[in-house]
Amino acid sequence: MLKQNIHKKIGIIGGGQLGQMMILEAKKMGFYITVLDPTLHCPAHSIVDEHIVADFEDEKAIRLLAEKSDVVTYEFEHINADVLEQLENEGKKIYPTAKSLKIIQNKFSQKTLLKSDGIPVPDFMAVSSVEDIKNAGNEYGYPFMLKSCTGGYDGKGNHLVKDASDCENAFNSLGGGQLPLMAEKFYPFTMEISVLACRAINGDIKVYPVAENIHEDSILNKTRVPAAISDETTKNAMNLAKRVMEVFDGVGMFCVEMFVSPNGDVAINEVAPRPHNSGHYTIEACVTSQFEQHIRAVSGLPLGDPSLIRPAVMRNILGEGPSGKAIVTGADECLSIPGVTLHVYGKETSKNKRKMGHLTATANTLEEAEKNADLAKSFIKITGLQ
Amino acid sequence: MLKQNIHKKIGIIGGGQLGQMMILEAKKMGFYITVLDPTLHCPAHSIVDEHIVADFEDEKAIRLLAEKSDVVTYEFEHINADVLEQLENEGKKIYPTAKSLKIIQNKFSQKTLLKSDGIPVPDFMAVSSVEDIKNAGNEYGYPFMLKSCTGGYDGKGNHLVKDASDCENAFNSLGGGQLPLMAEKFYPFTMEISVLACRAINGDIKVYPVAENIHEDSILNKTRVPAAISDETTKNAMNLAKRVMEVFDGVGMFCVEMFVSPNGDVAINEVAPRPHNSGHYTIEACVTSQFEQHIRAVSGLPLGDPSLIRPAVMRNILGEGPSGKAIVTGADECLSIPGVTLHVYGKETSKNKRKMGHLTATANTLEEAEKNADLAKSFIKITGLQ
Repeated sequence: MLKQNIHKKIGIIGGGQLGQMMILEAKKMGFYITVLDPTLHCPAHSIVDEHIVADFEDEKAIRLLAEKSDVVTYEFEHINADVLEQLENEGKKIYPTAKSLKIIQNKFSQKTLLKSDGIPVPDFMAVSSVEDIKNAGNEYGYPFMLKSCTGGYDGKGNHLVKDASDCENAFNSLGGGQLPLMAEKFYPFTMEISVLACRAINGDIKVYPVAENIHEDSILNKTRVPAAISDETTKNAMNLAKRVMEVFDGVGMFCVEMFVSPNGDVAINEVAPRPHNSGHYTIEACVTSQFEQHIRAVSGLPLGDPSLIRPAVMRNILGEGPSGKAIVTGADECLSIPGVTLHVYGKETSKNKRKMGHLTATANTLEEAEKNADLAKSFIKITGLQ
Repeated sequence: MLKQNIHKKIGIIGGGQLGQMMILEAKKMGFYITVLDPTLHCPAHSIVDEHIVADFEDEKAIRLLAEKSDVVTYEFEHINADVLEQLENEGKKIYPTAKSLKIIQNKFSQKTLLKSDGIPVPDFMAVSSVEDIKNAGNEYGYPFMLKSCTGGYDGKGNHLVKDASDCENAFNSLGGGQLPLMAEKFYPFTMEISVLACRAINGDIKVYPVAENIHEDSILNKTRVPAAISDETTKNAMNLAKRVMEVFDGVGMFCVEMFVSPNGDVAINEVAPRPHNSGHYTIEACVTSQFEQHIRAVSGLPLGDPSLIRPAVMRNILGEGPSGKAIVTGADECLSIPGVTLHVYGKETSKNKRKMGHLTATANTLEEAEKNADLAKSFIKITGLQ
C-alpha cells in the first residue's frame, strides 16, 4: 500500500503570519497548499499553490477550499464552524475538529467543559444584564473580568469591571447584551504562562516546555522559555495541557494559556486550537517547531520531539505610529546581535500595535537570550509610511 | 536615513532545492523573490513572487531578472557568467561576484589561484591531448584523476585514469579535447570533509563547523557533524576555508570541500560559490542555517552565528528505480524516529539517483544522531510511478 501523507493537499483558513509559518514548514515536506484569506497580499499569498480570496465566513469559499484539499485546518478560531461541521458530516477531514472548535469558540462552553472535567479555571458565570453583572460583582468582589463569550482576542472583548458603578459601562462597551457575556473572578496571578501541546490523530500527545509571557496593553510583548517557575509547577502545567488535549479531543497544535498564583497553583485562562504567538520561539529553540508539529498532526504523520534545545526569548514587533505602507528600519543592527532571528510577516500596511513581525534570540542561558532579544528589539522598528 | 535591506527584492538563478531552501529563509524575513528556472514546476515555483521560465544561459531572461531585483544570486555555478559580469559593469549587484564565479567555474583557474596563494591543493596540470594525459600519468603515477575544467558536478566530468592504456579512453570519455581538461594527482585521503564559510559585503567572515562527507557513486550520501578529526585538523580546515573566502573575495555562502590525509593534513578538493548539499544539516543543527546566512550576506545584512547547537547527521534521499511521477513512501515510519526532520523537494519526476529530498537527525550525541538518521533513511523511499 502506498503511504502518501507527504503529498497531501492541505487547505488553510487564514493567510496571516500563523498560516504563513505553517506553510513555510509544510513546504519543506513537499505539501500542496491552498489558503483562504480575504486579503490578496496577505503574508501567506506568495508562498501558496492556490489562494482563494474570500471572506472567512463565506460558505461557498470554504467548500471550495475543502474540495481542493485532503485536509482543512485554520490559523485562527473565529471562523464559520457550522460549515466545517457540515463538511465533516460529508466525510471531509477538518483538524482541529469542528466539535472542539465550536466548544472553544465560546469561552463559556470552553470553561464549562474544562471545569466539569476537574481542570482548574477561575470562577465564572454567564451574565446577560447589568443586574447579572452586579450580582457577579457581589459574589466575586471587584475588580473582576467581563468577557464577550465569542470573538475576543488580544484583550479585545474583555472589560475589567472596577466597581459597581462600572457595571453599566462594562455591559455597554461589550455590545449591551447583543453578544453572550460571562463574568470571571479575578485570579490573583504572579505570572502568565502558556503551554503548547499537540495531539495526533492516533491520540499521541506531545507537550512543549512552559513559556512565560509578558503582555503589554493585553498584547503579547515577550515570551521567555523556560519559565522561571518551580519544577513542580512546571510538571503541573504540562500535565494540565495534556489533560486539556484529552478533554477537547483535539487534533493539531493547541495553546493553553494559564495563570500562576503566588503559591504556585495553576489555572487555565484560555485555550486556542492552533499554533500561538507564544510558541514562535519553537522555530529556533525546539527540535520540532509548533508549525511543523501542526502540519505533522493534521496530515496524519507522527509527532516530533518538542524538547527545548536552547533557552529562548521572543519579542513581538508591533507597528508603531500612524497607519501606512510598512517600513522596516534597524534590521542591520537587530541582526548584528548574536543568536537573533528576525521574522517580518510582509504585511503591506503597518498600523499602530498591529503584529508586524517578531524576533527570537536563543543562547546558552536564558539571561543571555533575554539580554540579546531586548537589545535587538531596541533597534528594529516597523512604521507606517505616510 | 531609512535602512530597508529587509524589503529588498532578491533574484535567484535556479529554482531547484537549493533555491527553494534559500527562499524559505528569505520569506521568513519578508523578502520579495524572483526566480529564473526553465522548469515551470521546479521546487521553488510555488513559493516565489515571480518566476521567469527561461534557460539558465538566456541573456535576456537574466537581464529581466536583474531588472526586477535589487540583488541577483544563484544556486549553482554553471551559468552565464559573462552576462553577470556585464550587469555588474552596468551597476547591478551580483553576489557572489561574477569575478569569483568565473574563476571558480573553471577548475584549473580555481586551483591555480588557490595554489598561488599557498593554499594546499593536490598537484594538477592542464592537459589537452592523450599525449599530455600520459605525461601526467608518468609524473603523478596511476591512478590519477582526469577532470573536465568546466561543468562537472556529482562526479560527472571526472574520470579516474587507471593506467597508461586507459588514457585514450579517458580523453574520449571527457569530450576528446572539446572541453578544457586537467589532470590531478590522486590525493591519498582517509576522509572527505567540507567547511562552509560565508563572507559579508563588509568583509566579515563566518566559518561553520567541519562536516564529514561520505559519498556513494560520487554522490553525497551522508554528512556527519562534527567530523571525527583532531582539534588541530579541525582548526586547520576552518582556517583554510577562511583563507579561501579571502582569496576569492567571495560574498555569500561558499562550500570548501577538502581531503584529509592519513596524517591529518588537509588539501582543497573543490570550492562551490553557493550553499551546498553538505550544509543542509545547518537548518536544524546550527544557530544560523547556510540558507539564512546566504540571504543575509547577499542582501547586505550582518552575518549570523554559525555555531553547531547539536550533533547532526544528514542523509540524502535519491530517486530509486525507473523514472516517473515521484511517489514518497515510508514518511510515517521515517518521521516516527526522534529528532528527524524530512525535506521533500517536490520535484515532479523521480529519476534513479536524482536528489529528491534529504533528512536530518539531530541528537545529544553524534552516535545517536547517526543511528536515528540511518534508521529513518531505511524507511523512506522516493520512486517513480510508471
